[in-house]
Amino acid sequence: MSYTTRIDWKGGMAFDGELQGHPFKIDAAENHGGKNYGPTPKPMMLSSLAGCTAMDTVALLDKFKVSFDSFAVEVDGDLAEEHPKVYTNIRVKFIFSGKNLEDSRKKIEKAINLSQERYCGVAAMVRNTAEINIEVVLNES
Amino acid sequence: MSYTTRIDWKGGMAFDGELQGHPFKIDAAENHGGKNYGPTPKPMMLSSLAGCTAMDTVALLDKFKVSFDSFAVEVDGDLAEEHPKVYTNIRVKFIFSGKNLEDSRKKIEKAINLSQERYCGVAAMVRNTAEINIEVVLNES
Repeated sequence: MSYTTRIDWKGGMAFDGELQGHPFKIDAAENHGGKNYGPTPKPMMLSSLAGCTAMDTVALLDKFKVSFDSFAVEVDGDLAEEHPKVYTNIRVKFIFSGKNLEDSRKKIEKAINLSQERYCGVAAMVRNTAEINIEVVLNES
Repeated sequence: MSYTTRIDWKGGMAFDGELQGHPFKIDAAENHGGKNYGPTPKPMMLSSLAGCTAMDTVALLDKFKVSFDSFAVEVDGDLAEEHPKVYTNIRVKFIFSGKNLEDSRKKIEKAINLSQERYCGVAAMVRNTAEINIEVVLNES
């Protein structure tokens, strides 16, 4: 499987991008000449990680017959101080709301662990430089 | 420096995301239950790489007094066949148009090499699993 993306310079530090037919915008941080035309590119890796592990988790919980009302993933990442500034620590918080979720805690944790340890290629890639810490939040609704 | 992103499940495999105040959408591939609500998350790493190295290059070429009319970066990535499916080969094509760009080829290549070898944290992270090949295209305009 191969993927392609392209970005076109719009002047300054701004770029228009395209990925799988979907447009996106990126820009540098304002202290590096950006004008908030879009997010900065390096944190897109955290969005990529969030999506990768969230989709694994949804697919596995469907297989495990665990249902929930809402689900979000928050990812925070800390960069190294020195160039090249890679991520050194990443926190991934899985937040579920639903009924009787505590009864399904083991299955939820199993799904997340399978994603982190086996399926999520983005996690496997970033783990070469970053320690990833997982948190699971179950809210009764 | 730390960054945060969040994605919220919208049913199926679709998520609404937020990064630095900018919204984005992601979805699974259609053969994994997606409905093309947005791009798939793993290729966002390629967009992240494109942006990271493109912005370094623009900033360095400004410093080197090299001007151009247009600039684009195309990134292709091949995934491993087995889980976790990490990128194994990535091609990054830098495409410039402008006047007398051949006269600046050495400076352009220097900027790109500095990004790849020193500044671009995304390249440093993906290089743990993937070989990155660079191509430079200079079009006279």
